[in-house]
Amino acid sequence: MPIPANDPTKKTWLPVPENSDFPIQNIPFGVFLTRDDIITIGTRIGDHAIDLGALHQLGYFKDIPLTDDIFLQDTLNDFISDGQKTWRAVRNRISEIFEVSNEELKNREDHKEVVLFSMDEIEMQLPVQIGDYTDFYSSKEHATNVGTMFRDPDNALLPNWLHLPVGYHGRSSTIIPSGTPVRRPKGQTSPKENGKPGFGPSKLVDFELEMAFITTDANALGEPIPVNEAEDYIFGMVLFNDWSARDIQKWEYVPLGPFLAKSFASSISPWIVTLDALEPYRTESPKQNPEPLPYLKLSGNHSFDIQLEVDIKTEASSTTVSKSNFKYMYWTMAQQLAHHTINGCKVNSGDMMGSGTISGPNPDSLGSMLELSWAGKNPVTLNDGSQRTFIEDNDTVILRGFCKNSNYRIGFGEVSTKLLPSLGS
Amino acid sequence: MPIPANDPTKKTWLPVPENSDFPIQNIPFGVFLTRDDIITIGTRIGDHAIDLGALHQLGYFKDIPLTDDIFLQDTLNDFISDGQKTWRAVRNRISEIFEVSNEELKNREDHKEVVLFSMDEIEMQLPVQIGDYTDFYSSKEHATNVGTMFRDPDNALLPNWLHLPVGYHGRSSTIIPSGTPVRRPKGQTSPKENGKPGFGPSKLVDFELEMAFITTDANALGEPIPVNEAEDYIFGMVLFNDWSARDIQKWEYVPLGPFLAKSFASSISPWIVTLDALEPYRTESPKQNPEPLPYLKLSGNHSFDIQLEVDIKTEASSTTVSKSNFKYMYWTMAQQLAHHTINGCKVNSGDMMGSGTISGPNPDSLGSMLELSWAGKNPVTLNDGSQRTFIEDNDTVILRGFCKNSNYRIGFGEVSTKLLPSLGS
Repeated sequence: MPIPANDPTKKTWLPVPENSDFPIQNIPFGVFLTRDDIITIGTRIGDHAIDLGALHQLGYFKDIPLTDDIFLQDTLNDFISDGQKTWRAVRNRISEIFEVSNEELKNREDHKEVVLFSMDEIEMQLPVQIGDYTDFYSSKEHATNVGTMFRDPDNALLPNWLHLPVGYHGRSSTIIPSGTPVRRPKGQTSPKENGKPGFGPSKLVDFELEMAFITTDANALGEPIPVNEAEDYIFGMVLFNDWSARDIQKWEYVPLGPFLAKSFASSISPWIVTLDALEPYRTESPKQNPEPLPYLKLSGNHSFDIQLEVDIKTEASSTTVSKSNFKYMYWTMAQQLAHHTINGCKVNSGDMMGSGTISGPNPDSLGSMLELSWAGKNPVTLNDGSQRTFIEDNDTVILRGFCKNSNYRIGFGEVSTKLLPSLGS
Repeated sequence: MPIPANDPTKKTWLPVPENSDFPIQNIPFGVFLTRDDIITIGTRIGDHAIDLGALHQLGYFKDIPLTDDIFLQDTLNDFISDGQKTWRAVRNRISEIFEVSNEELKNREDHKEVVLFSMDEIEMQLPVQIGDYTDFYSSKEHATNVGTMFRDPDNALLPNWLHLPVGYHGRSSTIIPSGTPVRRPKGQTSPKENGKPGFGPSKLVDFELEMAFITTDANALGEPIPVNEAEDYIFGMVLFNDWSARDIQKWEYVPLGPFLAKSFASSISPWIVTLDALEPYRTESPKQNPEPLPYLKLSGNHSFDIQLEVDIKTEASSTTVSKSNFKYMYWTMAQQLAHHTINGCKVNSGDMMGSGTISGPNPDSLGSMLELSWAGKNPVTLNDGSQRTFIEDNDTVILRGFCKNSNYRIGFGEVSTKLLPSLGS
């Protein structure tokens, strides 16, 4: 069944700059602080943020069953809990209100006054309260690169990797929106000559180019989600920079996995692009061999053609250091969610699941400095002539992502994060 | 400065059965559903639950600055956010109200009618909304046993273990209160002859005898908590059964740590016993050698003498299979919290941190079936004559914990969880 909001011929009465990530076919969801210091749920078309709380109060959603305060909240969790049918109805209705020939709002200056904001007068917030955050490790190229560097080039993938989407629990309290700076973390590192561990600011701070999906309430405790239903419980996606301190990680991670090397910060783009909006960009994922167990087996196309890039911005220049694509992921989101719940684990509205670093097959499609500089051996030269093996103080790392076909472009905007020097340094 | 509520000479006008875990010197905090189906915050003395929401509405806390609805909530998070000074004032005031010579409430039948419940007419809930849950691995005996069984008896502890409290992020959505049954999880296990992974209900479901502490808002993002201040941010403790599926764990855990082997459930006792109430049982922890790095170094006594036991109850019998003690933990809670935040990780009200399995030095003080049966080699005989290597369907695992000195006993009650057969079996 076609989704009306995805109609490629649709135009809007709002101005949309050429190559905008936010045409009327996107209609992402986010949370922002208005010029009046009010937190509200909103969407974005072109460079306008739209206050859905105000629209709802003015009666524009009267034909959709919604509680009065559903958009007057500081997170999207309750809206997401309302389920796929409601998200679709709201997104379709927004598309209708802003369609070029619709005059309901277009000619109401008094309404537009309270509904529309320019992007530069609002402040984007974290869009959801993240109950639990899980990070997967689902790019075969990334897992192979890491295994080659740190273990055994001839057996780079561990035996379980091709049979299940390896994942681990992460820290949700330190997931921050684009624009919030990150401090270089302190921590212990592997002992040198004297046998004592090192201590101090991490010397090997890295980004990880990832995407993350946000779920709705999906199951009762003890009940797995079937893989062929899993996408119904995915609200949408964001760009995800999983900051990592490689030297801290190396020392701490056995036997229970990464901990403080990751939990100092992860940054996300603030607009959640719905799975519905991504539908036209659905594509196949890499062929899986060996065939997965039945609970992970799924036919059809379950990946998305999302072009990704990473820029490192210094005072003097901005340099694109990587271009990758979400479609390289070996394990799909549906498989990740089915695997996550096969043991009965409960998934709630606002949970976030990261893809793991998305590396592609080419030397310029690697999703971390660890891989781009091959563990520091091959420095990357920036456009200002300086070199990087890892991220330096005051560098800003920017991830961008968008889908494009002959009809239109749908994007995620960016997640931009500056690395500040360690406290006291 | 002595805490008035800890006065060992104090008696209460409420009946307290001999050997109760809940004398007037305990005053734990919890959340319960009353006979009128109202959720409230409460405490417990003897076998009475006390509705703090009702007490507050009746004016009994008028001398303490508290918002009107602080106890009329379904979690303790906001109360915990109010900080140590407030918890102390409220606990001291409760102690005063129920002190044997205090007649404020004692003689008000109309007030007692709405404030007091017998334990069998209420239903205990999860006491906090757990934002993030971290599990440590801080018993040297446990880590040594596991390392001996699965790696190398001569190098049982990994090189980092004596230098930092190893920990990992866990799943908070599946932390459940005592009384909620757990389903045997399904999952993948290591390949047998044909090279294909196994799949089905776990055959090696285990308990882990742990305790967990609950924090208040402790720091801003990027700012470590000094180890000598860390205890100020610990509200209290609960018993913690970290259910584990050993066969799933063995296959999935490299290289990112335990995931589905743990995230199907962890059970906690419903009353949070405050660190203040545990103060008289403060004791030293094992001497640390090598000396920890300065950010983990702390003088004085920072452990607690909490006697622990595990019972396995079948239809036919109940058997104590382990007796351990919290004081065996090598790393203290203060060190765990200081380590957790040394990278700037933000800790919030309601976060929970597990100790890791608490094994002691004796064969009967091991905190898991994995260790008690030595990976299944030495079955444990129950009082009904049956044998166990791991937990079987319909077994109930009960953890208990209490402190005792010549003055009085303070306890945690129990966390009791029945293991149900896997779905569809």
